Amino acid sequence: MSFTVYLSGEIHTSWREEIQQGAEALGLDITFTSAVTDHAASDAAGDHLGAQEQSFWRDHQSAKVNAIRTKTLIEQSDLVVVRFGDKYKQWNAAFDAGYCAALGKPYVTLHAEDIIHPQVVEILRYTTQA
Amino acid sequence: MSFTVYLSGEIHTSWREEIQQGAEALGLDITFTSAVTDHAASDAAGDHLGAQEQSFWRDHQSAKVNAIRTKTLIEQSDLVVVRFGDKYKQWNAAFDAGYCAALGKPYVTLHAEDIIHPQVVEILRYTTQA
Amino acid sequence: MSFTVYLSGEIHTSWREEIQQGAEALGLDITFTSAVTDHAASDAAGDHLGAQEQSFWRDHQSAKVNAIRTKTLIEQSDLVVVRFGDKYKQWNAAFDAGYCAALGKPYVTLHAEDIIHPQVVEILRYTTQA
Amino acid sequence: MSFTVYLSGEIHTSWREEIQQGAEALGLDITFTSAVTDHAASDAAGDHLGAQEQSFWRDHQSAKVNAIRTKTLIEQSDLVVVRFGDKYKQWNAAFDAGYCAALGKPYVTLHAEDIIHPQVVEILRYTTQA
Amino acid sequence: MSFTVYLSGEIHTSWREEIQQGAEALGLDITFTSAVTDHAASDAAGDHLGAQEQSFWRDHQSAKVNAIRTKTLIEQSDLVVVRFGDKYKQWNAAFDAGYCAALGKPYVTLHAEDIIHPQVVEILRYTTQA
Amino acid sequence: MSFTVYLSGEIHTSWREEIQQGAEALGLDITFTSAVTDHAASDAAGDHLGAQEQSFWRDHQSAKVNAIRTKTLIEQSDLVVVRFGDKYKQWNAAFDAGYCAALGKPYVTLHAEDIIHPQVVEILRYTTQA
Amino acid sequence: MSFTVYLSGEIHTSWREEIQQGAEALGLDITFTSAVTDHAASDAAGDHLGAQEQSFWRDHQSAKVNAIRTKTLIEQSDLVVVRFGDKYKQWNAAFDAGYCAALGKPYVTLHAEDIIHPQVVEILRYTTQA
Amino acid sequence: MSFTVYLSGEIHTSWREEIQQGAEALGLDITFTSAVTDHAASDAAGDHLGAQEQSFWRDHQSAKVNAIRTKTLIEQSDLVVVRFGDKYKQWNAAFDAGYCAALGKPYVTLHAEDIIHPQVVEILRYTTQA
Repeated sequence: MSFTVYLSGEIHTSWREEIQQGAEALGLDITFTSAVTDHAASDAAGDHLGAQEQSFWRDHQSAKVNAIRTKTLIEQSDLVVVRFGDKYKQWNAAFDAGYCAALGKPYVTLHAEDIIHPQVVEILRYTTQA
Repeated sequence: MSFTVYLSGEIHTSWREEIQQGAEALGLDITFTSAVTDHAASDAAGDHLGAQEQSFWRDHQSAKVNAIRTKTLIEQSDLVVVRFGDKYKQWNAAFDAGYCAALGKPYVTLHAEDIIHPQVVEILRYTTQA
Repeated sequence: MSFTVYLSGEIHTSWREEIQQGAEALGLDITFTSAVTDHAASDAAGDHLGAQEQSFWRDHQSAKVNAIRTKTLIEQSDLVVVRFGDKYKQWNAAFDAGYCAALGKPYVTLHAEDIIHPQVVEILRYTTQA
Repeated sequence: MSFTVYLSGEIHTSWREEIQQGAEALGLDITFTSAVTDHAASDAAGDHLGAQEQSFWRDHQSAKVNAIRTKTLIEQSDLVVVRFGDKYKQWNAAFDAGYCAALGKPYVTLHAEDIIHPQVVEILRYTTQA
Repeated sequence: MSFTVYLSGEIHTSWREEIQQGAEALGLDITFTSAVTDHAASDAAGDHLGAQEQSFWRDHQSAKVNAIRTKTLIEQSDLVVVRFGDKYKQWNAAFDAGYCAALGKPYVTLHAEDIIHPQVVEILRYTTQA
Repeated sequence: MSFTVYLSGEIHTSWREEIQQGAEALGLDITFTSAVTDHAASDAAGDHLGAQEQSFWRDHQSAKVNAIRTKTLIEQSDLVVVRFGDKYKQWNAAFDAGYCAALGKPYVTLHAEDIIHPQVVEILRYTTQA
Repeated sequence: MSFTVYLSGEIHTSWREEIQQGAEALGLDITFTSAVTDHAASDAAGDHLGAQEQSFWRDHQSAKVNAIRTKTLIEQSDLVVVRFGDKYKQWNAAFDAGYCAALGKPYVTLHAEDIIHPQVVEILRYTTQA
Repeated sequence: MSFTVYLSGEIHTSWREEIQQGAEALGLDITFTSAVTDHAASDAAGDHLGAQEQSFWRDHQSAKVNAIRTKTLIEQSDLVVVRFGDKYKQWNAAFDAGYCAALGKPYVTLHAEDIIHPQVVEILRYTTQA
């Protein structure tokens, strides 16, 4: 059983890589996707549509461009894993969780204090077994 | 034109009342709805389903009960106003914004530094004029 | 806040009446609906479309007629309460729960060992407060 | 014509294998899917998210994890075959039937007294003929 | 329980009136709707958009105008009763049945040889009982 | 039969009033809705969210505010009448027509050279007859 | 551009083959699908679920089995071509047209007097050009 | 990440080719689709269904045939780029934008005065990066 998992949220640690490597080590048939996780590139995503002096409109423009990618990938996924970090407000993570809830898309939320990446991999193994 | 507006987010200031009084003063035909904004009652929303020792499951249970109300009210609304405060993480506010985005429900986001409640009322007046 | 609650499942005890009386005592603005709970009438629901000798087709016909009512009422409700009794297989109750899950309709399941009707009423009071 | 069939319900007999072998013998282009049918593994599906002392929450957690798989597979299928056994309450089977009904997904229900697996294969052969 | 029933199909007998009178005699809270059943008016429904010399385009235009009404009424109904007569091809009746099937709208089909209007009324009484 | 008609497009002639008066004269039970048709007010609809120096963002902001109203009203309507004038590009009119097409909402398009308002009224009379 | 076309309706002439051969001759990348067009097999589609003495239930059972196939194929198609013959009532053809209308699926209807298969092929060539 | 982009609107300049060549030069995994952009062929798209003397019906027929293609391609796309030219009324472009808005499909609008095709390519590169 092939499966697509969208990894949402915190971008300052290597949690995405840990889950992907764990899944690979078990030979699971899973495609992982995510937003663009390069922070500076993400903030500048809309700059190609015209430089904006006001930060409000720069953010607005970049959010629109980022949404083209994230909307498509969330809707194509079978499961979304949302990780909240402890340093930032993580509105994007909570926004994605709400987006999933409205679509009826299954999602799991993780918090920084948990060290549960092996467990996430274990659940993916269980879910996608033949 | 009658209209229903769901007021989401920050619960520690009187912004809901300000918008409602402004709309009333103009005689607008608007129904305002929101989650239960009594913080303690909201945290205890699920306790009637059985007391939980672990805070994780207490939160989970209360979130489920609160969602019965918020899901219904957001889906019945014509517009959602989401206000982010400056003290808390406001995941609920961001979650509601994502929920609206996925449903294609119009929503406006406000931030604490803005003093734009008269403007919100002005927009409601414009939107609901005969 | 007005609210519609569909009461699904067990038909051999007075749990529906208990919840309705509790809600009435509190003055809640709730409409309760349910399938036809007269067992014999429910089994005969399709007989007017022509008597059937084979019980399979009699059941089939009655199920179709009953579904006209239950489908409409479940889709119009804001919340579904599903009660499993302890004597019967209760496939209808589980079917209704699955129906709700697929629609994204909020539902609560109760089991016979629980004496939680006052609690259900408490949750309805919380959910529908102004 | 390729086709995907989800086999729901009873897990204590070999009915899934019989249908699959029948379809294979006829060379039908059908993919069969199902929930995880190892009972113990299924009950423990959520344990990786953290051990739970209360059986209620253990069941709840495992049900959530199992739903990630079953929801995806039912929605991807073209037909669901639901088999009720005679020993257990089979709420999962009835739940899946209700889930299909709400989605408008075609489903067939079988009962233990029927020996109709060759017939199911015959119907699959008919349905998928070029 | 109030209920809306759309009566589709045959327009050359008084079957609509018989069902409506039967429902009224029982005091059922049912609204009956239907397409415009005046045959000549129905064929001319689009003529106000400009007279058409070719009957193909006259029919096309009238079909479009009639669809404004029927689409709205079918979607607003809780049940559709489709009656096939014995004299005409009744494509409209079959079209409406297909329309209902795709929407998941409950519908009942009747044929000319049946004298089942009292039965239809009986089913409506059963379905809408309190 | 009550009915809601959204009148989209050209705002420089009195076509809306003509249709409304015609419907009123016939005593039809129709509610007419439309975007805000005061051109200056419409262009300024977003100004309350903050004055914008760049006309691009002023337009963008006003379009968002106007969409709150038009989206709600189009989705609540049973029929949309779209009138193209001869002086302006009428992108809003064409946008609304595309919006209707995607929703499966019935719509009629009128062009400036046509003097067909009495005909539109005639069609409304036909469509909403008892 | 690849494309899937469902051919619905009349089964007593070779119109399906003519369109398929025309498309093949032009090298169009089109997959054609249809219901099972062997009349006797189609009427017996449900017999494997148990022989029925009453023709009503035999028809009902076969219709259910046939619908598994046709529902799947219509929903997977990009275009439906519905051909009405001149000998039969063709309720299935009209039913499929109504089904398409409710789904917003594009469909074309043909009648027996037309000799337009080369034209249908021409339209398919146009529609699927790179 | 593979991606499908529908290019809507203006057909008298080479903007489509410029974007496609830019994407190709960067090795992006993007499929570009569009309506038939040969103006004369597009106007004649419906002529194979029968020549029409009245231009109204010729246009109507061709629009229907063109819609088979555009509807399918817009719904299959992940992003729609709509370009308005400066010479024509561009109702098709605005119609497509409204169609996207109603579907919740992401779209970007370009105007003739902008020379932003390299920027569009830049955004596509950003959106589809691994």
